[in-house]
This record gives sequence, C-alpha cells and structure tokens, in this order.
Amino acid sequence: MKLLYPSSLVLDTKELEGFAATLHPYDVKKPLPEDVIDAEVLVTWSNSAENLNDAAKRMTNLKWIQSLAAGPNDVLNAGFDSKKIIVTTGSGLHDLTVAEHALGMLLDGARRFFEMRDYQTQGKWPGHLGGPQPDRPRGKFTTLRDANVTIWGFGNIAKALAPWLTSLGANVKGLARSSGVRNGVEVYGDDKIDEILATTDALVMILPGAVSTNNALNAARLKTLPKHAWVINVGRGTAIDEDALVEALESGEIGGAALDVFVKEPLPESSKLYKAPNCIISPHAAGGRPQGAEELIAFNLRKFMAGQELRNVI
Amino acid sequence: MKLLYPSSLVLDTKELEGFAATLHPYDVKKPLPEDVIDAEVLVTWSNSAENLNDAAKRMTNLKWIQSLAAGPNDVLNAGFDSKKIIVTTGSGLHDLTVAEHALGMLLDGARRFFEMRDYQTQGKWPGHLGGPQPDRPRGKFTTLRDANVTIWGFGNIAKALAPWLTSLGANVKGLARSSGVRNGVEVYGDDKIDEILATTDALVMILPGAVSTNNALNAARLKTLPKHAWVINVGRGTAIDEDALVEALESGEIGGAALDVFVKEPLPESSKLYKAPNCIISPHAAGGRPQGAEELIAFNLRKFMAGQELRNVI
Ligand SMILES: NC(=O)c1ccc[n+]([C@@H]2O[C@H](COP(=O)([O-])OP(=O)(O)OC[C@H]3O[C@@H](n4cnc5c(N)ncnc54)[C@H](OP(=O)(O)O)[C@@H]3O)[C@@H](O)[C@H]2O)c1
Ligand SMILES: NC(=O)c1ccc[n+]([C@@H]2O[C@H](COP(=O)([O-])OP(=O)(O)OC[C@H]3O[C@@H](n4cnc5c(N)ncnc54)[C@H](OP(=O)(O)O)[C@@H]3O)[C@@H](O)[C@H]2O)c1
Repeated sequence: MKLLYPSSLVLDTKELEGFAATLHPYDVKKPLPEDVIDAEVLVTWSNSAENLNDAAKRMTNLKWIQSLAAGPNDVLNAGFDSKKIIVTTGSGLHDLTVAEHALGMLLDGARRFFEMRDYQTQGKWPGHLGGPQPDRPRGKFTTLRDANVTIWGFGNIAKALAPWLTSLGANVKGLARSSGVRNGVEVYGDDKIDEILATTDALVMILPGAVSTNNALNAARLKTLPKHAWVINVGRGTAIDEDALVEALESGEIGGAALDVFVKEPLPESSKLYKAPNCIISPHAAGGRPQGAEELIAFNLRKFMAGQELRNVI
Repeated sequence: MKLLYPSSLVLDTKELEGFAATLHPYDVKKPLPEDVIDAEVLVTWSNSAENLNDAAKRMTNLKWIQSLAAGPNDVLNAGFDSKKIIVTTGSGLHDLTVAEHALGMLLDGARRFFEMRDYQTQGKWPGHLGGPQPDRPRGKFTTLRDANVTIWGFGNIAKALAPWLTSLGANVKGLARSSGVRNGVEVYGDDKIDEILATTDALVMILPGAVSTNNALNAARLKTLPKHAWVINVGRGTAIDEDALVEALESGEIGGAALDVFVKEPLPESSKLYKAPNCIISPHAAGGRPQGAEELIAFNLRKFMAGQELRNVI
C-alpha cells in the first residue's frame, strides 16, 4: 500500500514507519507521477487546485485523504468521490500558532505598536504613547490585565489561548453554540451574546466559516460593544460584516480591530479596511505551520490499517 | 503630620487612611502651596524638575520621599538633603506592565506585525508573510514556541515575564550578577554570557542603568548572537551600544531589535535606529503606570510611623 506525503513541508517520515505502507513524497504543485497514482492514502498541504483536480480524476485506488489544514476547502472542492474517500482534517495542528498570533494582535492593539510604527516610518518619536500614562483609563483598551476578553468560538484554538490570557490577568469568557464551563472558562450560548458583548474590552473571534457564523458580528452587535472595545479575528473573515466594521471604525463605534482573515483574500486593494482608523491588517498569517503532523498522520494511519474510526473525519 | 500625594495619577486614598497623618493632594507641575509646605512625607510621580527643586528648598520638615518610579533619578537630582531624607522607590509597581510590553515586542518581532504595517499603510497585502509557511525555518525567529529566550537582568520584571514565556513554549534562561535557579529559571553569571548569547533566539534586556551595565551589549557580543536573533530592550538604553546596534541591523548581523529605551530620550530624529532594518521603536512606553501604589505607600507609611525599616530604600 502506498502513502503519498507532500514535500511542501518538512515531515519526519521516520515517525510514519512501522506500517504495511510505503511512503512516497510528491510535489503538491504538479500532477502526480504515474508510478504512485495507485496510492490509497494522500496527505495534502498547500496543494495547487490543479494538483488536486488531477488527483481526483486519476487516483482511482484512493481511500483516504489526510489534510493538514484545519479547514480543507481545497480538498472538498476538488471533485474527489466523497462516497468512496474519507477526508480527515488537520484540526488541532494549528492551535498554538493561531493562539500565539491572536495574543500578539491583542497586545499590538492594547500597546499600540501599529501607531508607534506609523510615527517611526516618518522618523518621529510618538511621545504621546510613552512616559507616565493613566492606568486603565476609561474608554481605552490599554492592557490585558483586568480586561474582559471574550472568545467567540470556543474550540481547540481558544483552549490554547485562554490560559495565556488568564495568566496575563484578563477575565476570559467564551461564546459558543452550547454553554457550560470548558477548561475552566465560563462559555455562554447565543442567548447571552448581547449581554457579554456589552461588557467586553476585547473580542477574539475564532469562529469557523459556516452559514451559521456568517456576519455573526454585524452592525447591531458592533454597536453593542463598548466604544473602546477591540475586535480580533483569526477565525474566518465571513464571520464579520466588513462594511459595518469599516463604519464602526470610522465613526469610533469601537476602539479598533486586528484582522487576520477576510471575506476575500488577499484583501482587495479597494477595501476601506486598509485605511480605517485603528485597524491592523495581517495576511492570514496566524496558522499555516502545522505542529505535530506526524503524530496525527501516524495515529490515523494505524486506525486506517486497523479498520477503526479515524480522528478528525469531516 | 501631613502626607502629600500627587494628583498626576488616580490614587484610592481610602487605602491610605487609618494613620495619624492627614492626606493632601498636590499638583506635581507647580510649586507647592504654602499651607502644606511643612509636610513630612512626599509621594512623587512624574513631577516637574521645577516642582522638585522648589520642594527641596522649601520643605524643611521633609523626612521621607516615596517615589512611584522604579528609578527615581528625578528625585535624586533635585537637591534634597540625603542625610535627613529617606528616599524609597516604586520598584515592583511596574513589573506586570513592563513584562506585558516586552511580550508584545517579542511577538511583534516574531510575527512581523511591523512589516505588515508597512505594507498596510501603502494599501498592500503582505502575502509573503501569510499563508502556508515553513515551521521554525532555519535562520529566522518566527515564534516563541521552542525558542531560546534569554533575559539579561533577572530581577522583578523578569520574574513576571518568565512564566508567560515558558507557557508559550519558550526555553527561558537568565543572565544576572549572581548565578543560580530563580523562580524555576536557570540564571547564569558574567562568565557564561558569550556561551548563552551564542544559542539565543531572542534576548530580552531588562538591565538597570548603571556603570556596570553600560554598553553591556557591545559590537563583539552582537556578533556572538546568531544572525537570526532578536534583541528586545525594556531596561535602560545605555545597556546597548547604539552605534554597534545600527551596524548589526544594517549588516544583518542580528535578526532585529525592538527597543523601548534609548541612550537619549526622546530618540533624536537624527538617530539611524528609526530607519534601520527590522528595528521597532517604542517611546519608553513599557511602564509608566504604577500598579498597586496604594499598597506600597500604606505599607511604608505604617513602617515610617512605627520607626521601622521601609521597603525599597535607595
Ligand atoms: N487564521 C488562521 O490562519 C487560521 C488557522 C487555523 C484555523 N483557523 C480558523 O479557526 C477556526 C476555529 O478553529 P478551531 O480549531 O478552534 O475550531 P473548533 O475546535 O472546531 O472550534 C470551533 C468553535 O466555534 C464554535 N461555533 C461554531 N459555530 C458557531 C456558531 N454558529 N455560533 C457560536 N459558536 C459557534 C463551536 O461551538 P461548540 O463548541 O459549542 O460547537 C466551537 O467552540 C477554523 O474553523 C478556521 O476557520 C484560522
Ligand atoms: N521601559 C520602562 O518603561 C521601564 C519601567 C520600569 C523599569 N525599567 C527599567 O528596568 C530595570 C529593571 O527593573 P527591575 O524591577 O526588574 O529591577 P531589579 O529587580 O532591580 O533587577 C535588576 C536585575 O539586573 C541585574 N543586574 C544589575 N546589574 C547587572 C550587571 N552589571 N550585569 C548583569 N546583571 C545585572 C540584577 O542582577 P542580580 O539579581 O544578580 O543582582 C537583577 O537581576 C529598572 O532598573 C529600570 O531601568 C524600565
């Protein structure tokens, strides 16, 4: 049995040995060579659409695709036969990197490194941002200490982020589909959204792309947030109404926004978000570096060989 | 007995009641009014030089000055009679804020928010910084996870910062005058500096200003650091040879620098640091917001009343 693994990232293939499978690297940007086209297992990472479309047509023996992406839309849109082929995602491989990026964005907003940068590029000292400052001034988000941070979408990434925020002194709450305490954090359901938003200093959105999350943060909810509140988004761009966000930033309805994901990526140069006040643009850079991929592949390979249920099945 | 407290920050004076002392607010930018000039205790915060010079001449009853600054050079240079007057510092009141700022600077460097900002202000998408990325590429500092972070100057601020870095996955080491394990972190002395620097991915400098720390990071030690290493400075500007740093940045001798303190502040517009590649300029903004000042003042006030030794005596 053949397993094809992508050469688009460094994998320690020693960790995949010990199964009745031969391991073959492949180029994710080219059509697969004839001698491996009979493989039963395909691991994907940053494949080109051409590569996947071609594989969907030619890999007639394929039984299982392990994507290393958290949301493998590329694989799902390539035309593989979903009746014959199991698809598993890389959910969990991106928790630490995305959480770290979200923390960096929160601190960028609170400490205003973006504004300092604007002064620096003009060769100017942003004196108003330094020296003696009021502690926790009203109407400003200046530190995570004692700040009310709400994480909307309380899944794997949130569980990595929440303990860091707590140890920095933040009061962390969660919003998700079902309520209850998760990993020591109080998580609330839809009925509490407005109540929680009204007392939020920083809102971290980690919602997946889905019909139910579309425009979750709309004009009305942006108004519900305090005027000093910051919005961070590392989930999906579609979870925010971008036009309403531009308006909220321009009118000072919220304190600022730090965005890693957008409805359309790359963000079109015509987007008003580039120039909106207190808006930080990051180019979908939070994740993109799977951690511990070998462990997940080996775990699922064993399950696959044993005819047992795989982890992260779509 | 009169205690004068500064109106330059919000103090909860209820926490200072219960002693045989009357509490009087004063304006730190003006000469003291005649009716409080006989006070025995003066609390200072961001006072003007004029205010302090005037107080040094007119406050003939003064016995104790409680500064809320970590390094109260202003008070020490104002001409108070050091034989008659005890000076205590605000050391410990700035740990969390300075540590938070240092963490933000580390993430700004690792995640390259400063470079993203430069693209954003030009209305451009920094695509090369997002999407699928190599995990822990050689010759780059891209994440705190598994990074070797060295804190040079392992005092109160370092003790607040180290646990956060550890929980983000960094391997933290310390450098100080004396060696040994502090708060679970291995701290090394002068004899190990070069050895530690050679394997450092990010160096966080939190050294106090002193003759012994002058140019601690000089040209030779900048060369000892790996080419991808970042230097963060939230201690004192004098601890780095700024000319050598400019050269190291321009020649790619180190990965980057994020600086909150400078030999001369405001950093003169002629400084090459403003335009040096991979250099982040922050306007002495890490601290500046004393935390828990009331507790320190009340503690020392009780000690003062009891004739016992005060905390943070210079
Ligand atoms: N920026 C990047 O580079 C990057 C990288 C990786 C992932 N991501 C994005 O981050 C998303 C989250 O990742 P994850 O691993 O944390 O996912 P996860 O573990 O599946 O968690 C998703 C969370 O969202 C909640 N949720 C789903 N639909 C909701 C709705 N309509 N209303 C309220 N809450 C809802 C879920 O609630 P329940 O728990 O109640 O079901 C769950 O708590 C991914 O889907 C992906 O789009 C971005
Ligand atoms: N950027 C800002 O806004 C801001 C705000 C507050 C403070 N600061 C600066 O931060 C500095 C540190 O604050 P802190 O409260 O952490 O001070 P601290 O508790 O006094 O600690 C100072 C540390 O530096 C070490 N040290 C002193 N001289 C040294 C030398 N020559 N070589 C090696 N190590 C040396 C000490 O080593 P030993 O423990 O072995 O004696 C100690 O570990 C302050 O002095 C101040 O300049 C900056």
